[in-house]
Amino acid sequence: MNSKELKKLLEDVKTGSVEVEQAYKEIKALPYEDLGFAKLDHHRTIRNGYPEVIYCEGKTNSQIVEIVQRLMQKNNNILATRASQEVYDAVCGVISEAEYHSEARIIVVRRRTVVLADRQIAVITAGTSDIPVAEEAAVTAEVLGNRVTRIYDVGVAGIHRLLSKMDIISEANVVIVVAGMEGALASVVGGLVDKPVIAVPTSVGYGASFGGLSALLTMLNSCASGIGVVNIDNGFGAGYLASNINKL
Amino acid sequence: MNSKELKKLLEDVKTGSVEVEQAYKEIKALPYEDLGFAKLDHHRTIRNGYPEVIYCEGKTNSQIVEIVQRLMQKNNNILATRASQEVYDAVCGVISEAEYHSEARIIVVRRRTVVLADRQIAVITAGTSDIPVAEEAAVTAEVLGNRVTRIYDVGVAGIHRLLSKMDIISEANVVIVVAGMEGALASVVGGLVDKPVIAVPTSVGYGASFGGLSALLTMLNSCASGIGVVNIDNGFGAGYLASNINKL
Amino acid sequence: MNSKELKKLLEDVKTGSVEVEQAYKEIKALPYEDLGFAKLDHHRTIRNGYPEVIYCEGKTNSQIVEIVQRLMQKNNNILATRASQEVYDAVCGVISEAEYHSEARIIVVRRRTVVLADRQIAVITAGTSDIPVAEEAAVTAEVLGNRVTRIYDVGVAGIHRLLSKMDIISEANVVIVVAGMEGALASVVGGLVDKPVIAVPTSVGYGASFGGLSALLTMLNSCASGIGVVNIDNGFGAGYLASNINKL
Amino acid sequence: MNSKELKKLLEDVKTGSVEVEQAYKEIKALPYEDLGFAKLDHHRTIRNGYPEVIYCEGKTNSQIVEIVQRLMQKNNNILATRASQEVYDAVCGVISEAEYHSEARIIVVRRRTVVLADRQIAVITAGTSDIPVAEEAAVTAEVLGNRVTRIYDVGVAGIHRLLSKMDIISEANVVIVVAGMEGALASVVGGLVDKPVIAVPTSVGYGASFGGLSALLTMLNSCASGIGVVNIDNGFGAGYLASNINKL
Amino acid sequence: MNSKELKKLLEDVKTGSVEVEQAYKEIKALPYEDLGFAKLDHHRTIRNGYPEVIYCEGKTNSQIVEIVQRLMQKNNNILATRASQEVYDAVCGVISEAEYHSEARIIVVRRRTVVLADRQIAVITAGTSDIPVAEEAAVTAEVLGNRVTRIYDVGVAGIHRLLSKMDIISEANVVIVVAGMEGALASVVGGLVDKPVIAVPTSVGYGASFGGLSALLTMLNSCASGIGVVNIDNGFGAGYLASNINKL
Amino acid sequence: MNSKELKKLLEDVKTGSVEVEQAYKEIKALPYEDLGFAKLDHHRTIRNGYPEVIYCEGKTNSQIVEIVQRLMQKNNNILATRASQEVYDAVCGVISEAEYHSEARIIVVRRRTVVLADRQIAVITAGTSDIPVAEEAAVTAEVLGNRVTRIYDVGVAGIHRLLSKMDIISEANVVIVVAGMEGALASVVGGLVDKPVIAVPTSVGYGASFGGLSALLTMLNSCASGIGVVNIDNGFGAGYLASNINKL
Amino acid sequence: MNSKELKKLLEDVKTGSVEVEQAYKEIKALPYEDLGFAKLDHHRTIRNGYPEVIYCEGKTNSQIVEIVQRLMQKNNNILATRASQEVYDAVCGVISEAEYHSEARIIVVRRRTVVLADRQIAVITAGTSDIPVAEEAAVTAEVLGNRVTRIYDVGVAGIHRLLSKMDIISEANVVIVVAGMEGALASVVGGLVDKPVIAVPTSVGYGASFGGLSALLTMLNSCASGIGVVNIDNGFGAGYLASNINKL
Amino acid sequence: MNSKELKKLLEDVKTGSVEVEQAYKEIKALPYEDLGFAKLDHHRTIRNGYPEVIYCEGKTNSQIVEIVQRLMQKNNNILATRASQEVYDAVCGVISEAEYHSEARIIVVRRRTVVLADRQIAVITAGTSDIPVAEEAAVTAEVLGNRVTRIYDVGVAGIHRLLSKMDIISEANVVIVVAGMEGALASVVGGLVDKPVIAVPTSVGYGASFGGLSALLTMLNSCASGIGVVNIDNGFGAGYLASNINKL
Repeated sequence: MNSKELKKLLEDVKTGSVEVEQAYKEIKALPYEDLGFAKLDHHRTIRNGYPEVIYCEGKTNSQIVEIVQRLMQKNNNILATRASQEVYDAVCGVISEAEYHSEARIIVVRRRTVVLADRQIAVITAGTSDIPVAEEAAVTAEVLGNRVTRIYDVGVAGIHRLLSKMDIISEANVVIVVAGMEGALASVVGGLVDKPVIAVPTSVGYGASFGGLSALLTMLNSCASGIGVVNIDNGFGAGYLASNINKL
Repeated sequence: MNSKELKKLLEDVKTGSVEVEQAYKEIKALPYEDLGFAKLDHHRTIRNGYPEVIYCEGKTNSQIVEIVQRLMQKNNNILATRASQEVYDAVCGVISEAEYHSEARIIVVRRRTVVLADRQIAVITAGTSDIPVAEEAAVTAEVLGNRVTRIYDVGVAGIHRLLSKMDIISEANVVIVVAGMEGALASVVGGLVDKPVIAVPTSVGYGASFGGLSALLTMLNSCASGIGVVNIDNGFGAGYLASNINKL
Repeated sequence: MNSKELKKLLEDVKTGSVEVEQAYKEIKALPYEDLGFAKLDHHRTIRNGYPEVIYCEGKTNSQIVEIVQRLMQKNNNILATRASQEVYDAVCGVISEAEYHSEARIIVVRRRTVVLADRQIAVITAGTSDIPVAEEAAVTAEVLGNRVTRIYDVGVAGIHRLLSKMDIISEANVVIVVAGMEGALASVVGGLVDKPVIAVPTSVGYGASFGGLSALLTMLNSCASGIGVVNIDNGFGAGYLASNINKL
Repeated sequence: MNSKELKKLLEDVKTGSVEVEQAYKEIKALPYEDLGFAKLDHHRTIRNGYPEVIYCEGKTNSQIVEIVQRLMQKNNNILATRASQEVYDAVCGVISEAEYHSEARIIVVRRRTVVLADRQIAVITAGTSDIPVAEEAAVTAEVLGNRVTRIYDVGVAGIHRLLSKMDIISEANVVIVVAGMEGALASVVGGLVDKPVIAVPTSVGYGASFGGLSALLTMLNSCASGIGVVNIDNGFGAGYLASNINKL
Repeated sequence: MNSKELKKLLEDVKTGSVEVEQAYKEIKALPYEDLGFAKLDHHRTIRNGYPEVIYCEGKTNSQIVEIVQRLMQKNNNILATRASQEVYDAVCGVISEAEYHSEARIIVVRRRTVVLADRQIAVITAGTSDIPVAEEAAVTAEVLGNRVTRIYDVGVAGIHRLLSKMDIISEANVVIVVAGMEGALASVVGGLVDKPVIAVPTSVGYGASFGGLSALLTMLNSCASGIGVVNIDNGFGAGYLASNINKL
Repeated sequence: MNSKELKKLLEDVKTGSVEVEQAYKEIKALPYEDLGFAKLDHHRTIRNGYPEVIYCEGKTNSQIVEIVQRLMQKNNNILATRASQEVYDAVCGVISEAEYHSEARIIVVRRRTVVLADRQIAVITAGTSDIPVAEEAAVTAEVLGNRVTRIYDVGVAGIHRLLSKMDIISEANVVIVVAGMEGALASVVGGLVDKPVIAVPTSVGYGASFGGLSALLTMLNSCASGIGVVNIDNGFGAGYLASNINKL
Repeated sequence: MNSKELKKLLEDVKTGSVEVEQAYKEIKALPYEDLGFAKLDHHRTIRNGYPEVIYCEGKTNSQIVEIVQRLMQKNNNILATRASQEVYDAVCGVISEAEYHSEARIIVVRRRTVVLADRQIAVITAGTSDIPVAEEAAVTAEVLGNRVTRIYDVGVAGIHRLLSKMDIISEANVVIVVAGMEGALASVVGGLVDKPVIAVPTSVGYGASFGGLSALLTMLNSCASGIGVVNIDNGFGAGYLASNINKL
Repeated sequence: MNSKELKKLLEDVKTGSVEVEQAYKEIKALPYEDLGFAKLDHHRTIRNGYPEVIYCEGKTNSQIVEIVQRLMQKNNNILATRASQEVYDAVCGVISEAEYHSEARIIVVRRRTVVLADRQIAVITAGTSDIPVAEEAAVTAEVLGNRVTRIYDVGVAGIHRLLSKMDIISEANVVIVVAGMEGALASVVGGLVDKPVIAVPTSVGYGASFGGLSALLTMLNSCASGIGVVNIDNGFGAGYLASNINKL
């Protein structure tokens, strides 16, 4: 409820077409639905056609199923991230057409057609082990209405592999770089393209990678300008931000 | 044994109603019971009617059962935290009326009626995954004799969910905020209420949440004044402190 | 503006006693004053008689002076923390009756009489070097309308010093424990009193104290229940929280 | 030199209009100028009209002056960041029309007119102390050809200050959030707008803020989707990324 | 081979009673036995009657068994630490009289009688969960020839439990303090006794205990003088050092 | 494709013996093979006879098998590191002559004879538990064409064990030191030899070894000059670097 | 006041030779003197002839001088650590015979003769830069009544320097090892002597020494048994503990 | 004194040409000179013609001058690192021909001619601010007898700058990569050359570079094989190791 709507509501109160009690309730209670253990926010979905999003980690199967059931009543698309096979099986019990992207660990329920943006998002990984995080980003971006180009395993230790793909990468409107270990790929890509770059450190590595800390610090300290960093392994966040940028 | 009691004991020694050897033993040995592997402190229970508390983690089932048996001889209430289902089963073997709060992982044995404080404690969570820690706080506070209001899943990413609950929250005498990930909820609530706020960071999150460190630092650095922080996932501590405050 | 006031405003709009445009402006603009570089919040002051608070670190002298001048127009009391002698000199240029508590690094401007709470707050330090932080807490609590008892240099390495003061400490309604180095004082005090304990780690120490981290972790992990922790060296926060508790 | 240009060069070699030796030199040597201690990259400037950028920290005054002199021969705009007053004085010795933005610590030399983008970038700070970093972001974005709206001191401890500015913020195409201490502002803003949000943690704070680490972790772990984070105090990077996004 | 022995050997070479080749071999090869994957050092055992020590973690069962077999040929006592039940079963296959201290996770093989030192070592724990580490220390000290007094579960949150045991503790020649969580017990004990105190942080705790880091820092920063700290959970090291001190 | 080859290609384009399109493709596409999820780089293998290397961690069995199959078509040697028994079983399904070095967790496929370097590489460990990492280094170096001398369990707590082996160690051309816990062996060896020393910290240890961090810091801060450090547990990297040095 | 004295006091109360009020006061108030900002503890001094100790860091000059004046009335020896030249000048103003050990930063006031222990304490450093910390340890030990042998700059990078001094070191009863950088000296010495070893990490070093953290971790993880570690740069603590051990 | 020399000495003892006492002294005392505060090691210098090295940080000017005077009596070359201008001035007082490399902060005294190795060492930096560390490496390598090629400011954000220099870099026998911020240059260079690469992280950067930690972790986690890492800012160590490798 933005300022325009607030003024409108106040006008309606003034003219008497809306009761005071009613107005108060609307201001307070409208934008979400309360399940007790969860408050479902239909706000953003209504506004921009985005799917409802469920982050599954830390929720019980029965909580997830209950949330899905409520959301389905709104007939919106649903995107459930960090979903194990077991979660998917539970969800399938109540909605059989749910798709499962196992590498991305994402469940998608498609109820409405999403119009695709014209321009592309490129998703690049440094190694093969970074692909699951990249897929979380790619599938998220696709479900949010974007075309995605995947370029995997082009880490800087073999820079010619990256350079040979630069023409494809340069055509993208937004570039997502997914890398673990030392995460240097983000800096090199950031230096080669003029488009916004979103860097996703991954927990791929061992020893002094400290669960992705190394890649995270690399990306934050990048000598290349124009790089925004998300949390370690946060493919969803990268896909979401890329979509927000791509749809401007 | 406070200073008044010490003086009284000394008087008794002087008048001869208490022997020196006896007095010495009382000063040293009175306030707890020694099981060898554990020293049971009945001190606080006697003084303020609080239940005896057992922290189960790192204790064997047989140790816990032995402690419970001793405590039951005093006929006090018992609160056992971080108790797995398996621990509960063992305890049930010796005291069948023990209740188990599985989400809070708390066992409660009620022997005496606890008078409830008039004023309420509000327990708020940022997300659904924070509920187990919140329940540890809530059940603790209840067993200690407080009324508790639960408001769950009102994280700051959808600030209207929180704002719509502010009138309920404002009625509380003490507010416990439970949040993982970035833990920002504590700051927002701290800015909206004039009551003491206790913040509990949780280990909910991944990557750069570093097991709750992120939420912990957020809460310690809060720009809102009047927030006391407890250890990561320490719902018990928050409930206990809230009770101490609520009963002033 | 809480829910009651919102309803009232809506009623006024309905009856026509308040114009829509006016109502909208009030909802949005009332609670603070905008200096561009700072937004002064008179909200809390009005509500509970607290002084206006300025955190001086990171602000230029001219910014601080300008803020003070604006606040003085409201005729409220002012509490400026982390204020160097130099800041004080600048403030004195515009308001000569400002007091300076040099050890606490606090400037106080008293315009209104504050009613003192009946019950006391005890402020305890482990060492002599912790006194400046303790004074920040004590002066803050006093300016907010509390009586404060100071007990300094009773660290646990000489436990008899602490024990000999326990009767004074036990009379307090809230206890603030200020300690650097290993910060163990909080645990011992927490075990000895039944009142809320607020622990303030300080940066006093060297080597593996890591700027107060050691004391902070000690306090967060305290085996004593009922301790709320604030940021390293955050005497103000401790005093503020203690005051909120003491005034319940 | 992208793939199209490489093909063109190869065609020219084939037709003989370019000599082999010449072609080789172009491929290798074209895109930058070598001062020994620095390699000046005119590449990006030529391509998208961006100014040449100098990061002053760690460079001697004479190095900076020599770089500026070379860059001026290209007649491009220059943006020198992290420039002290002393650096500015040295630069003024060779180019008198250089402007100095002292709060942002930026030197600007304007030689060419920059066309302004239609849409706005909003720069928001949590506190007054965050303004220098915000100004680095704002001035950078302006010099790169963007309109900037500044909204300062709207931290979450007084959420009404932020909410009252949300209509202005919502009009922006990209939002930069600058916050130290616990950095919670990014999450709240991220939840309120549908546009890309760039979060800049600052080193404002003390104790457990650990030089900005607290705010950094908060922003990386934000429960709000669509936030890209840059390095602590990296106003320049945020302004640059925002500009890249705003010009899509 | 100390300086006296070296001189003696050189004298023997000079007089011809030892050949050069032989002398060279002795200097190089004498003090240990080489199994390839392990070099067994009989050096210390010979010198001071200490048992041979095997640290089992990271060794395969067959490696441990082979080491034990070799050591048994020397007829010395053996102390194997960090030994699981499974390791014990394997060792029993080759030497049936091996004892297993399951709480301490120590295997002992006694072949020679050890003379007990007159004076005692006290081993104290803060909680029940610290007992396994304390037992590692206590059993180690006993096998090395010391009398040990155990005082368990006397953490500082109930300081009277500790004080009531101080007369027993004060009789010890060396005091080992074992504590997890915030580890404050070491400071309090260190302030109460004039004997050397060895502090053992344990990994008991959760959240901000960071696997024992909290207790470790506490002990290193203790305001009490005269405390030496060993690694987290290093009961063996504490027992060994205490024995070295006790036998002076 | 180095500068000489680039010039040659340009000459060929000029003389017409190579078409422009063809030349462009070669520049871009030559050096690797694209499997989608992996880009195989035959570049280095061709140049210096090294085996193709597969890092197995984070790859699925089917991905590894597919990579192996492709590499076998080139008839090169293959070195697969961090390979579990399960991976080996899968690989054996497609190439039966694959060898498995279980302690080193390395799979080797030998198709071409490797000429051995004349000079030796010494691999030293501090303890028995460090042997798996040492074996990764040793097997890697051997497969790359080096002779390796193994000296295990010569940690500095029994310095005579090390000293007695110094003549063997001194004969090596490069020395790899593998040590966990405190990692002091690297400094002592570094002070005793004049050859390049490569230090490999291992995650062997507990408590304050923090997963190898302790040994890593020790080696980086070594007071002995001439030590290069690789990642924790990175036996492969050490063997590879040693081979690069040994073959100069 | 130990248990024997308590019994005696109670006897006196019983016989009437001591009044109840008097007894109570003695139990509480006897062992220290209260200056408000400091509580002087004469307890230990009386008991074992140790000097009174003042830790100067964080105390003002006037506080230190006032403490010294009070202590002088007891006619005890005084040891003031972390004392700058400026502090010494202030102390000299009230007691001219104070000595200043500038390298150790220690002020000593000698009023009583201290009997020297027969056996020696050896203080060893790895480098020249570690000498100030070593001197703090050495002077402390000397003032507490011990003979000290100093062996400086025998770090492990030149192990022969250490070995050539081993006969002197072996004669000591307790060995203090002071080392910065990687701190490996403690492990090597710990393996060579059978006496208690106290390790003092120093902040000497740069980069990844992280202010002494590297040396600290090395010493805690030492593969040599029998090493107790004190805080970084804590020469005083090491000297104090060594003295406690040496006087057993 | 290696094993051959030990045998020779023993033979001499046997034949009587060396006395036992004399032999013992030689074994113990030969290899260094003792100044009390420093033990000068002429060992390595004699053996391989290397200069004597003094690390100046943490030493007083008078200590450095005394060391230099002693070393000059041996007529060896001297390399003094981390030397400020002030140290240089003091050294010039006793030896006027000392050279000062101010950027590298190195003092060199040349007494003997050093034969230069045939092959080159390349020293590369990512930025201009990394040059001082690079110069420390380069000057060290030169004084040790190597030819050095310097290529500065070729960071990966402008990868064409690096690629254009690859033919020069490829000619080197050893490559030193010096980089701060995210340190990605090491990975890219490591992927492009087949020679040993030594990576030096620098403390250049701000915020999340954490004093060089970011670059250090990047280099340790490099996806390129064959990289050895030295301490942050340790140009000397890199130059020394490179020299050891180059002279094989």
